[in-house]
Amino acid sequence: MRISGSFAHIYIALIHYPVYDRQERVIATALTTIDIHDLARLARTYGVGGFYLVTPLKSQQELAKRVVNHWVRGWGAEYNPTRKEALSLVRVADDLEGAVKGIEAEGRQAVKTIATAARRYAQARSFMEISDILRRDRRESYLILFGTGWGLTRETVSRSDYILEPIEGRDYNHLSVRTAAAIILDRLLGGK
Amino acid sequence: MRISGSFAHIYIALIHYPVYDRQERVIATALTTIDIHDLARLARTYGVGGFYLVTPLKSQQELAKRVVNHWVRGWGAEYNPTRKEALSLVRVADDLEGAVKGIEAEGRQAVKTIATAARRYAQARSFMEISDILRRDRRESYLILFGTGWGLTRETVSRSDYILEPIEGRDYNHLSVRTAAAIILDRLLGGK
Repeated sequence: MRISGSFAHIYIALIHYPVYDRQERVIATALTTIDIHDLARLARTYGVGGFYLVTPLKSQQELAKRVVNHWVRGWGAEYNPTRKEALSLVRVADDLEGAVKGIEAEGRQAVKTIATAARRYAQARSFMEISDILRRDRRESYLILFGTGWGLTRETVSRSDYILEPIEGRDYNHLSVRTAAAIILDRLLGGK
Repeated sequence: MRISGSFAHIYIALIHYPVYDRQERVIATALTTIDIHDLARLARTYGVGGFYLVTPLKSQQELAKRVVNHWVRGWGAEYNPTRKEALSLVRVADDLEGAVKGIEAEGRQAVKTIATAARRYAQARSFMEISDILRRDRRESYLILFGTGWGLTRETVSRSDYILEPIEGRDYNHLSVRTAAAIILDRLLGGK
C-alpha cells in the first residue's frame, strides 16, 4: 500500500487560534512541539505542499521558528536528516487568512479550505467525497484545517469551503489532534 | 465511516524494551506520557480489548501506574471522564511474555502476536491480509506490537506470528509511533 500521486497542491494547518476550550470559550492554545514534529512528519509522508502553524502570538511564532531552525539549519539537520526533510515543510502564519496568502505566494491559486471536526455538522462530506475532490483537479489548491484544544470554532468551520465528517469511533471521538490528523490524511491521501 | 464490529479480542502493546536506538543497539526507552494517552485513546476509539505498556524498569512501571491512576481513579477521572474511559484500558507488563500471560489471564486463548515495522521484511503481510485475519475468528486473540525508539528488534519481529507491512510514505517512513499506530489501527480496524 504505497502512497502515490502528487499532493503538492494540498496543505495542512494546525490552528492555535481561534479554537474552543472545554467550556467552548474561544482561546489561543500553546504550541506543542510534539505536534509540530508529528504533523511535519505526516506532511512529508503524504507528500503535501506545506504545513502551516497558525498562531497570532509572536512569542509562540518565535518558538516555532526556533524549533524549525534547529532541525532545518542547526545542529539537528545533521543529526537527523529525515527530521530536516519534514520540518522544512513548516510555515508560520498569524491567522487563517495569512496561511491562505502564504500558499498563494507560493504560486497556488484559489485556495479552498477543508475543516475537520470531531462533531458532526449537517453539511459534512464523507472521507470518500473529500478524497475525490482533492484528486479531481490538481490545479486547485486545498488547505486542511486541524483545530487544537477542543476544536475549531463554529465560525471557522462554517466559513470553510468544505467540512469533513468526523472519525467515528465506537461511541468515542476523543483522539489527540496528532493521531486524528494521521488517520484523516491516511483516509484522504493514503494509497489504496 | 463508522467503526463497527467487536475488537475485544485484539490488544495492542507499546514496547519500551527491547528496541533499537539510532545505531541499532538494543536499549530500553523512557516512557512518554503523551504516547500513553494517545495510544489509550486510540485503543478506546477502535474498541480493542486492552493496551499493554511493556517495560522491565520498575520506576517506569510506577510512573505509568501513577499516570493511569490519576485519570482512572484520581482527580482526573472527574475532570475528564473520556480520558478515564481510555486510560482504563492500560495495563503494564515486564516483557512481551508478561503481556501475553496478562491477556490469557483475562480469559483469552492462544494469543498471536503481530509485529509492526517501518522496514520491509520478506515475510510481511499486507494490511488487507492482517485485517482479514483479525476479523476471521474472534475466539482467537491477537496482540499488535508497536516499537518505541528506532523500532522492534529483529528477534522480536521474527518471533512474532505475523509481520505487518510498513506504512510506505512518499520515500519517507519516519512517522512517530503515535501517528503510525493511528494509521495502522485505522487501516486494520477502521470501518469502511
